[in-house]
Amino acid sequence: MRASGPLAAALERLRARPAAPEPLDRPVPLAELPTPALVLDADALDRNLVRMADFLGSHGKGFRPHAKTHKCPELARLQIAAGAAGICTAKVSEAAAMVYAGIPRVLVTSPVVSADRASLLAALAAEAGQLDVVVDSELGLDVLSAAAAGGAGELGVVVDVDVAMGRTGNRDGDAILRLAERAAATPGLAYRGVQHYAGHVMHVKGHGERRDRSLKLWERVTGIVGRLTDAGLAPGIVTGGGTGTYDIDCAVPVITDLQVGSYVFMDQEYRLIGGREGEWFDDFEVSLTVLATAISQPTGAAVTVDAGYKSFASDSVNPEPLDVPDTEFRFAGDEHGVLLLRAPTQEPLLGRRARFVTPHCDPTVNLYDWYWVCRDGLVTEVWPITARGCAW
Amino acid sequence: MRASGPLAAALERLRARPAAPEPLDRPVPLAELPTPALVLDADALDRNLVRMADFLGSHGKGFRPHAKTHKCPELARLQIAAGAAGICTAKVSEAAAMVYAGIPRVLVTSPVVSADRASLLAALAAEAGQLDVVVDSELGLDVLSAAAAGGAGELGVVVDVDVAMGRTGNRDGDAILRLAERAAATPGLAYRGVQHYAGHVMHVKGHGERRDRSLKLWERVTGIVGRLTDAGLAPGIVTGGGTGTYDIDCAVPVITDLQVGSYVFMDQEYRLIGGREGEWFDDFEVSLTVLATAISQPTGAAVTVDAGYKSFASDSVNPEPLDVPDTEFRFAGDEHGVLLLRAPTQEPLLGRRARFVTPHCDPTVNLYDWYWVCRDGLVTEVWPITARGCAW
Repeated sequence: MRASGPLAAALERLRARPAAPEPLDRPVPLAELPTPALVLDADALDRNLVRMADFLGSHGKGFRPHAKTHKCPELARLQIAAGAAGICTAKVSEAAAMVYAGIPRVLVTSPVVSADRASLLAALAAEAGQLDVVVDSELGLDVLSAAAAGGAGELGVVVDVDVAMGRTGNRDGDAILRLAERAAATPGLAYRGVQHYAGHVMHVKGHGERRDRSLKLWERVTGIVGRLTDAGLAPGIVTGGGTGTYDIDCAVPVITDLQVGSYVFMDQEYRLIGGREGEWFDDFEVSLTVLATAISQPTGAAVTVDAGYKSFASDSVNPEPLDVPDTEFRFAGDEHGVLLLRAPTQEPLLGRRARFVTPHCDPTVNLYDWYWVCRDGLVTEVWPITARGCAW
Repeated sequence: MRASGPLAAALERLRARPAAPEPLDRPVPLAELPTPALVLDADALDRNLVRMADFLGSHGKGFRPHAKTHKCPELARLQIAAGAAGICTAKVSEAAAMVYAGIPRVLVTSPVVSADRASLLAALAAEAGQLDVVVDSELGLDVLSAAAAGGAGELGVVVDVDVAMGRTGNRDGDAILRLAERAAATPGLAYRGVQHYAGHVMHVKGHGERRDRSLKLWERVTGIVGRLTDAGLAPGIVTGGGTGTYDIDCAVPVITDLQVGSYVFMDQEYRLIGGREGEWFDDFEVSLTVLATAISQPTGAAVTVDAGYKSFASDSVNPEPLDVPDTEFRFAGDEHGVLLLRAPTQEPLLGRRARFVTPHCDPTVNLYDWYWVCRDGLVTEVWPITARGCAW
């Protein structure tokens, strides 16, 4: 590695990655894909993109979709084209992948506390013209202030407000006020507003229970926004929420835009939380699946597919089989899964392919280097997952 | 993508990946790494490599280490240099990554049942001169026979024998005999022997219990080897086992070599199974850790680090903190973990870095694109994880 220092070396590798869609030389059926394959139905995706933009627009809210879900510049580009206020990234490297690919108005939604990462943010702000990052501590503001001094771009600061989750964000009203004050007063930094994300509420089962819990938290954020406004620090943006509460949080007056992520793909974990009316949360279509092949059948009661912990995230529910009725997926190690056959079958399953709804889309996507993108049932393009592995 | 067809396109991308170690421009302390960082202690690794080779050698057994653990050609090269009989890979793409990097004597330990994958195996055998793959069904042998006809390399067939696990492998003695017979009689294929892997036994707690269970399974495999031998199909290799039973299975006379994987790194899941004498399985050193940074502290009782489901495998136990005493790691989503502070601390943790023993090394490694390799506590090289994501 020629670049000076490990961070520079890592960035050099990241900049060399492909970011643009690449057409296949001919459209191919799913049966020709090497499995496990991450398959994106672009038709369903398009409908999801429109549905969210229309819904939030009709409620007077913007959307700032989270690229931590898809890690794909092409998808971010489509979201910007659909009217997104900007694009969120979870980490600085993910922001770098987006900026290198020309994606504008990036907000980094996790705080940084080290000087090298702050310098990188300043450099990315210079490259993109503008970049925003959350802050929740004086230490965070220290390193941002130092990095922004004399920087060529505009480094925006969003104060991360915690209410009850206890992950990131500051929950002390006085401290939040001081951070906003300091951000507004620091040369090279621009005070933008506040973020509030209650990740633990997104998957609360039942729409009513989810609504009550989310709105209660936003009440307290609204109080903080009031204090900031009284102090002459009215936030330009109040950003937060997610796919699980998109139709709930849009009723909160102070919110300017929602950080929806999973709506583009949907996953089994979200489907199971329940919708406004039914048992399933199906406001958006499942556009993302994993295609696997049945490679072994050591007993009659089960068939083994070529996808395990390295092909499906294992932090939540199990993948859901789409094409083989009366079966249930169980993980069978890193490389395999077992489809338990609930009903006796006469069909020869060996060699057959089957699609699965991903258990949790974000960490599943993070296992793959590209989407096989299909339209009208045929795979036509590959979209690189450029920010794959960009947890740093 | 210019290559014809999706599999060829995927292979083209794979061949373009870096495989050789790259030195940093200067040795750097861990504190300079962008986190989360996958850190490999090459000194501890060297000792693990020697320890396993010496132990098995002294028991008259070979080793055929599994690259599904490390996915790194440089590590495979070191294992071959340490005397390995060959290198195992879980999937065909993983084998391709190894063959492209010049690693010899690769055995693919999962069956293939599709024509395109069998053709790729034949092509890899031609490129490498020799390649082996397991088979557990007539369909598998059909596609291999067709692909091997007229192939330039030697495609070796190892019959995968299941005893009790029910994942891959055939458990019908007559069927196993037929597969071996057919492999031996098929032009272009070479019958090599049998594989038996009991993944579910590797993590049985307590050395005595693990020994009883593993040896009981191998008794049945020994019976099958007897039947094959009586039929004039004496296996040249009998391969299987793993790190959890390396010192147990070496007592089984028919075994020729052990498919040890995790011994190079160790992980928390293996440490907890217990050793021959003590509570911990510590025959090998922990050479692999994840370095993370404390980026937020919303409450006094916990600190948030920048590593979650995208930085640690979540299929087994939790990561184990090494540097911060009296703490316990809990996952806090895709991007974060929370260190619960069991004892009150006066130390300012924010901004501090901490290392963690990986929960399960194989799927954790699969989240990263490279190892930061250190010697004497300084990071000197980057080793690409060339086969990362090669589950296909």
